[in-house]
Amino acid sequence: VAEGRRRTLVDVKRGVTSYDVAVRAGVSQSAVSRCFKPGASVAPATRARIMAAAEALGYAPNAIAQGLITRRSNLVGVLISNLTNLNYPEVLSELTRRFSERDVRVLLFTLQTESDVPQALTQLWRYRVDGVVAAARLEPAAIAQFGARGVPLVLYNRDGEGAAVSSVCCDSRAGERLLVDRLAQAGRRCFGVITGPADSHVSQERVHGATERLRELGLSFEVADGAFDYASGGVGVRRLMMATDNRLDALICANDVMAIGAVDAARHSLGLRVPEDLSVVGFDGVGPARWASYNLTTVRQPVHRMTESAVAMLLERIERPELTPERRLFAGELITGGSARINDD
Amino acid sequence: VAEGRRRTLVDVKRGVTSYDVAVRAGVSQSAVSRCFKPGASVAPATRARIMAAAEALGYAPNAIAQGLITRRSNLVGVLISNLTNLNYPEVLSELTRRFSERDVRVLLFTLQTESDVPQALTQLWRYRVDGVVAAARLEPAAIAQFGARGVPLVLYNRDGEGAAVSSVCCDSRAGERLLVDRLAQAGRRCFGVITGPADSHVSQERVHGATERLRELGLSFEVADGAFDYASGGVGVRRLMMATDNRLDALICANDVMAIGAVDAARHSLGLRVPEDLSVVGFDGVGPARWASYNLTTVRQPVHRMTESAVAMLLERIERPELTPERRLFAGELITGGSARINDD
Repeated sequence: VAEGRRRTLVDVKRGVTSYDVAVRAGVSQSAVSRCFKPGASVAPATRARIMAAAEALGYAPNAIAQGLITRRSNLVGVLISNLTNLNYPEVLSELTRRFSERDVRVLLFTLQTESDVPQALTQLWRYRVDGVVAAARLEPAAIAQFGARGVPLVLYNRDGEGAAVSSVCCDSRAGERLLVDRLAQAGRRCFGVITGPADSHVSQERVHGATERLRELGLSFEVADGAFDYASGGVGVRRLMMATDNRLDALICANDVMAIGAVDAARHSLGLRVPEDLSVVGFDGVGPARWASYNLTTVRQPVHRMTESAVAMLLERIERPELTPERRLFAGELITGGSARINDD
Repeated sequence: VAEGRRRTLVDVKRGVTSYDVAVRAGVSQSAVSRCFKPGASVAPATRARIMAAAEALGYAPNAIAQGLITRRSNLVGVLISNLTNLNYPEVLSELTRRFSERDVRVLLFTLQTESDVPQALTQLWRYRVDGVVAAARLEPAAIAQFGARGVPLVLYNRDGEGAAVSSVCCDSRAGERLLVDRLAQAGRRCFGVITGPADSHVSQERVHGATERLRELGLSFEVADGAFDYASGGVGVRRLMMATDNRLDALICANDVMAIGAVDAARHSLGLRVPEDLSVVGFDGVGPARWASYNLTTVRQPVHRMTESAVAMLLERIERPELTPERRLFAGELITGGSARINDD
């Protein structure tokens, strides 16, 4: 009885079936099925007749029922934290567009903080996603769930912290080391660093890269806590000026938006000249970093190449689950703006 | 044979069934089903036993198979154009969070332009979404498809242009009329307007509101085409200065990002003082509008209340398809910043 009911619902739910389309187009039912299967071969004239009949009847193949048969949902999950961060909307937009071009849909999970992951995973398993791109922190236990369920996972801008998992990252450490080197070469001697939120892996990598290089060069520095937002850039620069008895001459912010907040506070509240009195650098290369009022010196993430790689790596692993994990690390691009005078060659 | 194969796949796909959970927890299979059905009543102690058993076995109910039985997918489609517009990431983040709190998942469709809708709709029908929120332009024929398929639709920041469809909007016309009034009261006499993209309904409403009020007041104005981005604000202000023989003293931009571009170009390229020589106003109330370098005078959309309403209206109509369409129009909030000196009471 249950099977009978289910079958009825699958077939008659919206009224029109592939059989109706086949009759109207004067083709076999299997030709209609092939026509809606990506990559299957159908003669152009036949395809045109089928599409016209499908359009006229309002027929659309049921992707969910198809998924039950093919074991594919053609859904991928995207976990992303804090969309109001200026970098992530571009990442999400690129990922969605690229998946869509491959006929794959995005089931979106936005997290308020990177610590909200377990709840999102419970939902992911319910929807039988074919794979997941996660721009959020996954604990080793969470990564292990993907392995146990055979669901491919690609981490975006973080690696597995030891776990064997595929990832696409911008090289945060190398980027920050480069910024420190150039500021030091330009004669800056008293450094400040503003961090992102404590649970952000990206922040930890960037701060680690900068402070590691500062220590190697024997340069003095102070660290202030930030939150990746505009306000915390302003608060941070004030704290660091106090902590250094106003000797601060180079400020490294763990992202562009905090650098923008720091530039505004330095100029409009502290009466400092940027870059003459204080050099300020960010990280990301978001759109507003290029606005004339800021013109930030920063490291730009190659978002196009990174999202392209994430999508390709995930779809490859959905097709061929036996592939081993792969890590791709992209160098960021140094952008020399007006917020820090450095030698860029 | 086909039914038999389908049944096998549904039940054994990931190995663990509700029966296994029921046996381990020592309860009936229907208790397990109730436990995973939102709103169904299960004694707390029973629920705890079931959840522990489910966790131990790695059981997750199959939302897609459930959807075939309940006729619900618990998926809603969100159509949104141009995520890199600074207003939409906040809208998307709020919508996703609110749906998620109601145990509903978001299938995301991002459009490069508002004209990409038909393709997205073809996909939407394949996934049997329960309903759709569209922050993108739908032609009457597209809106009619929702009616014919019985899929509830709520338009975000645009109405059906005559079609009977639910919508949540910020009152663009009233907001623009208010800005014109305040600029005129402050003695501004030579106006310019920078539009958004030609296919943007929001742009059309805003430009219509502003120019309608300018005509009523008998004030002269010029219009320049923009694209809702930073660069077109700068291009627009230069064109309008030329078109008015440098007499332009009030500039109305159809969104904040163009106003920011115009402020930067006015100050850094044209050598004008803002607001002394030129008052600039935007629309949206995005985060960067409050950055100290801009401090825009603008109209803020009540995004929290608008997204809350859109989610509530859609879920109501999924529950009760017989409800008639409803339009909610929210007044924007005038924010008096430093980019235009106006009297704000």
